Amino acid sequence: MSRLFMFEKPLGMRDTLPELYEKKHRIRTLMEDTIKLWGCQFIETPTLEYYETVGTASAIQDAQLFRLLDKEGHTLVLRPDMTAPIARVAASKLLQDDMPLRLAYSANVYRAQQREGGRPAEFEQIGVECLNDETVSCDGEVISLLISSLKKAGLSEFQVSIGHIGFAQELFLQILGTDERANSLRRFLYEKNYVGYREHVNSLSLSSIDKQRLLQFLELRGGVEIIGTALDLIENEQGKQAILQLKELWDCLNDYGVQDQVKFDLTIVSHMSYYSGILFEVYAGKVGFPIGNGGRYSLIEKFGKNASATGFAVHLDRLLEALGSYDIENTVTCIFFSQERRKEAFQLAEKMHEKGKRTVLQDINGVKNLDAYTKKFADTTYLLGGRADE
Amino acid sequence: MSRLFMFEKPLGMRDTLPELYEKKHRIRTLMEDTIKLWGCQFIETPTLEYYETVGTASAIQDAQLFRLLDKEGHTLVLRPDMTAPIARVAASKLLQDDMPLRLAYSANVYRAQQREGGRPAEFEQIGVECLNDETVSCDGEVISLLISSLKKAGLSEFQVSIGHIGFAQELFLQILGTDERANSLRRFLYEKNYVGYREHVNSLSLSSIDKQRLLQFLELRGGVEIIGTALDLIENEQGKQAILQLKELWDCLNDYGVQDQVKFDLTIVSHMSYYSGILFEVYAGKVGFPIGNGGRYSLIEKFGKNASATGFAVHLDRLLEALGSYDIENTVTCIFFSQERRKEAFQLAEKMHEKGKRTVLQDINGVKNLDAYTKKFADTTYLLGGRADE
Repeated sequence: MSRLFMFEKPLGMRDTLPELYEKKHRIRTLMEDTIKLWGCQFIETPTLEYYETVGTASAIQDAQLFRLLDKEGHTLVLRPDMTAPIARVAASKLLQDDMPLRLAYSANVYRAQQREGGRPAEFEQIGVECLNDETVSCDGEVISLLISSLKKAGLSEFQVSIGHIGFAQELFLQILGTDERANSLRRFLYEKNYVGYREHVNSLSLSSIDKQRLLQFLELRGGVEIIGTALDLIENEQGKQAILQLKELWDCLNDYGVQDQVKFDLTIVSHMSYYSGILFEVYAGKVGFPIGNGGRYSLIEKFGKNASATGFAVHLDRLLEALGSYDIENTVTCIFFSQERRKEAFQLAEKMHEKGKRTVLQDINGVKNLDAYTKKFADTTYLLGGRADE
Repeated sequence: MSRLFMFEKPLGMRDTLPELYEKKHRIRTLMEDTIKLWGCQFIETPTLEYYETVGTASAIQDAQLFRLLDKEGHTLVLRPDMTAPIARVAASKLLQDDMPLRLAYSANVYRAQQREGGRPAEFEQIGVECLNDETVSCDGEVISLLISSLKKAGLSEFQVSIGHIGFAQELFLQILGTDERANSLRRFLYEKNYVGYREHVNSLSLSSIDKQRLLQFLELRGGVEIIGTALDLIENEQGKQAILQLKELWDCLNDYGVQDQVKFDLTIVSHMSYYSGILFEVYAGKVGFPIGNGGRYSLIEKFGKNASATGFAVHLDRLLEALGSYDIENTVTCIFFSQERRKEAFQLAEKMHEKGKRTVLQDINGVKNLDAYTKKFADTTYLLGGRADE
């Protein structure tokens, strides 16, 4: 292999070197600990799944799936998300007793990238899925746990924007008449292209009242005060139910004491086709993409169980970016030894380890460039030659 | 999809449900903490690598590789081990300054299975790679760290069998004359088929003295007392050097105080073609396969750097099997609440979380079968209806 090529990695694949690894590990542990305290149970699912089962159930488009064939000719995929595998496990094993179930995961997911652009093709998500509990309290719990775990991870400046898939759906359908026309308009919301949305609305042959309603819809972002405006905008009963759910959620989040971290944004729509109710996105600092998202979904039905669920996923790399750069203190000691004092060195290292101090044992003969090497450590000790007291 | 098929997973792929997950997590953390205390730095590498780089460098046979094609037609593999990816990272980035380097990982690796047989195709390894330090002390450190981390994980009954790739190699070549004949005999050692080995030796046209030497070779298992016998058996200088390295290692492991956990076994050979010196396997209890293995290897040269390395990998599932079954105490409390007392419930849960007590908050309206559900918890609290003091 050529010398240049032999260091290459596939498109979107990355190495995580020690310093970044340690930061990720620290954040992951803080989030996991919080999630466990709230009574969620972590599970792990395989990296490879059948395309026919998890691949088609996931909302990730086919072009982003890494595929391979097994010996029987079945198509396998590297899991593109954890929601579909968890729905599979829950439906096949864990939901047999028809009780609420709180699951969690921290796992890498895989999405093939089309071209160089710095987008990772493998990245870690930490998430929670609360299954088989239809109450709005459960949506409130998921959002509160998300907020609590982000705070525990050290994030202070962030906001959860909450919407409801049903409201825009009903409003657009009512005014525009067909799914096709509603989808055309919704596409501007996916892309957060509000200028395009306005131009599109103005180009439609609608009454000026209906145009006004569609433009007013864009203003439905803020606190509990938008609830009244939203109720006035919609006539349809299902649309009103969506808003009343959001009102109940608001009260619930207030009881949780997390109201300062949330606002409504009824323009949120998702590319995930399985969302069926409340949904949300988390934004932090200057990170251009949401660091997390979630909502209520009805994916489990695809696996033959009649149960809805609600959950969140946090994109660990983006969370790390939001936390900003900071240095990890180097606390590692190195004990250099020569053969004569090897045992003494080992005993000293053992004492240091027992005290929880990170300590390297280094045979002095193993080091070619001692001056440079010692600079890697916070502290050094030398046990060389005969003992002074011998 | 058919109802039966939709729950299926690809051959050798497994789900890890909550109880097993928690046990694995506990063991992994204990091992990782020990490895960090000894000054090793954890890294992560991508799941997918180019076949041309890491795939060919790894010692896993091609039939066991999961392969796929990227858009440019390059073959990608799911990493079959972590040693080759770490060699790639080290050679390309971390060994630039030519100093000793202690890396570690805990990662899933992937090996395709040929047929149903209960063998996992995805499994977790925790391991250490000490690079660019040629001293026997470094081999001793790796073995001592392996022993220390297994003990910290709770394993008491286990043994590290230590051999040297150079001894059998030199002895066989010296007596049998050709690599081909040496390999034929070595195959019985791979398979630990000592009966077959004896029959094969007896069938060879060799002097009775040489036959005797090859049969005596099988007896080279035990403590430091076998060193003398081994030196007597070999005439070739490289073979003697191998034994003298083992003697030095023995002294080193004595200084570490881990001599009770190790013995020599010169019949150990590995299917990993990159081993170049001391190598070892760990056996525990009734587990039929080694729970870990390792040794010195020269893989980094394939990535253009002249550096040898020594390391170990522990197969986490096998370690778990060796630790035997035990129950995890259920300590989770559930607070059931109705809407009127939601805020009170949240505040109580917050206090429990602050005390580190795993506590679920459950809206009573979300539960269909309360009697069965309460049995899932160690403790339950009910905050329902109006408060008694209101």
